[in-house]
Amino acid sequence: MKLPKKVTLKEVGPRDGLQNEPQQVSTEHKAAWIDRLSKSGLSYIEVTSFVHPKWIPQLADAAEVLSSITRQPGITYAALVPNRQGLERALQANIDEISVFMSASDSHNKNNINKTITETLPVLKEVVSEAKASGKTVRGYLSTIIACPYEGKVSPEQVKDIAARLFDMGIDELSLGETIGVAVPPEVERLLEVLLPEFAAERLAMHFHDTRGLALANISKSLEMGITIFDSSLGGLGGCPYAKGASGNVATEDLLYMLDAMGIQSGVRMEGLIAAGELMESILGKPLKSRQMEIHRRGGK
Amino acid sequence: MKLPKKVTLKEVGPRDGLQNEPQQVSTEHKAAWIDRLSKSGLSYIEVTSFVHPKWIPQLADAAEVLSSITRQPGITYAALVPNRQGLERALQANIDEISVFMSASDSHNKNNINKTITETLPVLKEVVSEAKASGKTVRGYLSTIIACPYEGKVSPEQVKDIAARLFDMGIDELSLGETIGVAVPPEVERLLEVLLPEFAAERLAMHFHDTRGLALANISKSLEMGITIFDSSLGGLGGCPYAKGASGNVATEDLLYMLDAMGIQSGVRMEGLIAAGELMESILGKPLKSRQMEIHRRGGK
Repeated sequence: MKLPKKVTLKEVGPRDGLQNEPQQVSTEHKAAWIDRLSKSGLSYIEVTSFVHPKWIPQLADAAEVLSSITRQPGITYAALVPNRQGLERALQANIDEISVFMSASDSHNKNNINKTITETLPVLKEVVSEAKASGKTVRGYLSTIIACPYEGKVSPEQVKDIAARLFDMGIDELSLGETIGVAVPPEVERLLEVLLPEFAAERLAMHFHDTRGLALANISKSLEMGITIFDSSLGGLGGCPYAKGASGNVATEDLLYMLDAMGIQSGVRMEGLIAAGELMESILGKPLKSRQMEIHRRGGK
Repeated sequence: MKLPKKVTLKEVGPRDGLQNEPQQVSTEHKAAWIDRLSKSGLSYIEVTSFVHPKWIPQLADAAEVLSSITRQPGITYAALVPNRQGLERALQANIDEISVFMSASDSHNKNNINKTITETLPVLKEVVSEAKASGKTVRGYLSTIIACPYEGKVSPEQVKDIAARLFDMGIDELSLGETIGVAVPPEVERLLEVLLPEFAAERLAMHFHDTRGLALANISKSLEMGITIFDSSLGGLGGCPYAKGASGNVATEDLLYMLDAMGIQSGVRMEGLIAAGELMESILGKPLKSRQMEIHRRGGK
């Protein structure tokens, strides 16, 4: 089993996690949590989203979060940006990197962004070129890369075509989102067999939701295929809007356990994640659902 | 990714699950649950254990459970047996198949059976030959195949040596137990690379605990290596005695989801497992922890 020696974990909990949590978290608590995450060895934290507050009220304090955190050298602090207005706000907040997003299936894209894929592409193109002109790196998110909650299976060719459009716009990296957590390893393998001849593995990230407990199986297969960037969320925060109450993103600490046991370096320290998890448990007043937090609470190791 | 077309799921919830549940379940409830499992398409159910009641009081009613269930044609009803006394009781209860058990590490074996590995082998040999003489098939369980809670890592060669002794005794199949749920896919691959040149894949089963959420990743790798028999427990019942409150066996319904999505036949029907899960939730008065039961409770699919 050929595995990479080193990977990068991109922590998306403060954005993808909190935007799907029913509970509102105060700016002060968000900043305290992000500051604790900054001490765990993570090199990338997506801290918020500059979408309009009426869409995601949980993240209405995007600018305040960015001005409240203590940025650490060597860490990229990123934020999601849906359009030019969002980009302006993100640039004013002196963000390090921005992310643009769309879906690989038309009906999920419409439901999420209120535009068709064809209508979305020029909007993103404008945002990407302005961000690049401002000296920022840009990450693309592509959702529903295996299946769409409305349309069912999405073909690898469809994903490849949209990925090519996004790279043509000038994005630096593409995060492939398995939005509804239905994929199994052979599907991940087939998708990557189509994508990897076209795009460098170093520019692709995998973003798995753990709805059906398959995220680590899919990450293990992605590692075998040469992928070295993975999105995850501390404590598996987030949930899935298509299966209410189900699990969210793969938990950063559960992924770290697997990587450590595989001998793959990430630079992230388990005790740092556990400390950030304990803080979030006290903020939310509920236990986080990851296996590592569960084992930690029970006094195991 | 080469995968088998067909696998067998061996349901161990009534034994491995219930023996680790703190709550006592009545004989009547056990029988009702096993009868419901018998209608889900499963072809193998390990219903109880004939160990001395002082060791596992939860399963003191082994004989009563076997006389209370309605056996279905085509299903093998099996039970764990530690020694000759247990075998006598199991034969009187007209069990279809018996299982003998030991560990690949001496200190876990001592802690579990109160004997060294060297002392255990002749006891098992006697049980196996008497069971075979009575016309029963015999399954072996070997625990701590990757790591021991007391000794740390266990070498594949140690596992191979004990497996050879057990097959030499005449066992029909060996179930390899990853007792503490610490293994990652490359370790499973290394172990199977050592075992598969020696033993036919059709005679090896994998038995994963899901303590760190890695069971499906390890099963996916085992499938790629040619393994076609997997132990699992409805609802992930069981827990881990070495990490109190943590998850137990991999949940049968979560495994079934993965197999169905991979196009691998098992003969088991999800709605049958969900029905058995709902019954167990009402018996225990608590939700089962599997992803499929969670999604089902939330009204998802």
